[in-house]
Amino acid sequence: MEVFIEPIGRLMNEFSKLPGVGKKTAQRYAYRVINMTEGEARAFADAIVNVKRKVRYCKICGNFTEEEVCDVCKSRDRSLVCVVKEPKDVIALEKLHEFKGVYHVLHGVIDPMNGVSPNDIRIKELLSRVGEGNVREVIMATNPDVEGEATAMYIAKLLKPLGVTVTRLAHGIPIGSELEYTDDVTLARALIERKEI
Amino acid sequence: MEVFIEPIGRLMNEFSKLPGVGKKTAQRYAYRVINMTEGEARAFADAIVNVKRKVRYCKICGNFTEEEVCDVCKSRDRSLVCVVKEPKDVIALEKLHEFKGVYHVLHGVIDPMNGVSPNDIRIKELLSRVGEGNVREVIMATNPDVEGEATAMYIAKLLKPLGVTVTRLAHGIPIGSELEYTDDVTLARALIERKEI
Repeated sequence: MEVFIEPIGRLMNEFSKLPGVGKKTAQRYAYRVINMTEGEARAFADAIVNVKRKVRYCKICGNFTEEEVCDVCKSRDRSLVCVVKEPKDVIALEKLHEFKGVYHVLHGVIDPMNGVSPNDIRIKELLSRVGEGNVREVIMATNPDVEGEATAMYIAKLLKPLGVTVTRLAHGIPIGSELEYTDDVTLARALIERKEI
Repeated sequence: MEVFIEPIGRLMNEFSKLPGVGKKTAQRYAYRVINMTEGEARAFADAIVNVKRKVRYCKICGNFTEEEVCDVCKSRDRSLVCVVKEPKDVIALEKLHEFKGVYHVLHGVIDPMNGVSPNDIRIKELLSRVGEGNVREVIMATNPDVEGEATAMYIAKLLKPLGVTVTRLAHGIPIGSELEYTDDVTLARALIERKEI
């Protein structure tokens, strides 16, 4: 980046660390910052430092929170636990305003190819939550990919002896799509999991 | 963004101010920051504040610099001046390692529809540079759109009485493209500006 003066090159380099940001995008972002007022730039910088300082993990569910225990864990039905891979999955579900239970964020899925074993994600914590005896159902909401499915199966096997109901999000044809354009695996799954109407 | 806790929502809001960044992208960026180390986040924040503190405009050409006069103005042929709309155009030309002259950044083009008059961009500064008498050629390198062309013509008219050569970047068929797929305006221009071989 020698055509850029040092402060601009340095800021571009920082922006490049964000997911999906290449050199050209980093340049556009850096130029936008140069055109900010001093106060705007400072507010931006503060928000970055602030998020690192204030955000921590809920000691119960592992989701982001500013306190020791998150608002969801504090106020909702703790007998129903939805297990997800990442905090962003909690956001996706919360946006529905449909789910009344609490979450358990695994912070990953079992992925031996990439060296992620069951001990690397928050499975122990889930078992001890369920072991306390107040959970009636655990919904496995990991992604419907190989690792997500395998992780769901692995955890289900560990949970069942504890006498808890373990469920999985339904798979099938997305609402509004057409049979013709549904991929084979999804269509086969929809057929197998057909329901009486 | 009520589903996000305050520090995350606030950072997402800051990221949303960057060009082309929507809510989803801002969320991805914010989550990346949360996963940074404390030191990485601080380096990122510092780079933002630093760029505002250190970057200013060269008092000759108007491009970004850390000093009063930029390196290009200090070290290159000041008798050849290339006029561009924005600092990013300087970068595009500098990458060629072809141009040996200096620049003049207008910081905009004349655009009456959006309230930009000749007085709002650095035309006066260009006239006084040329008026000093050491410039032999001014290359108008504004974009080949309506405003860019009009600005080039406007400035050329002001410069010619000063006895300086005014040129414009050549228009024509892009190298490597095909006649069939060249747009009509470009093709017509290429025909008009044909050269003897």
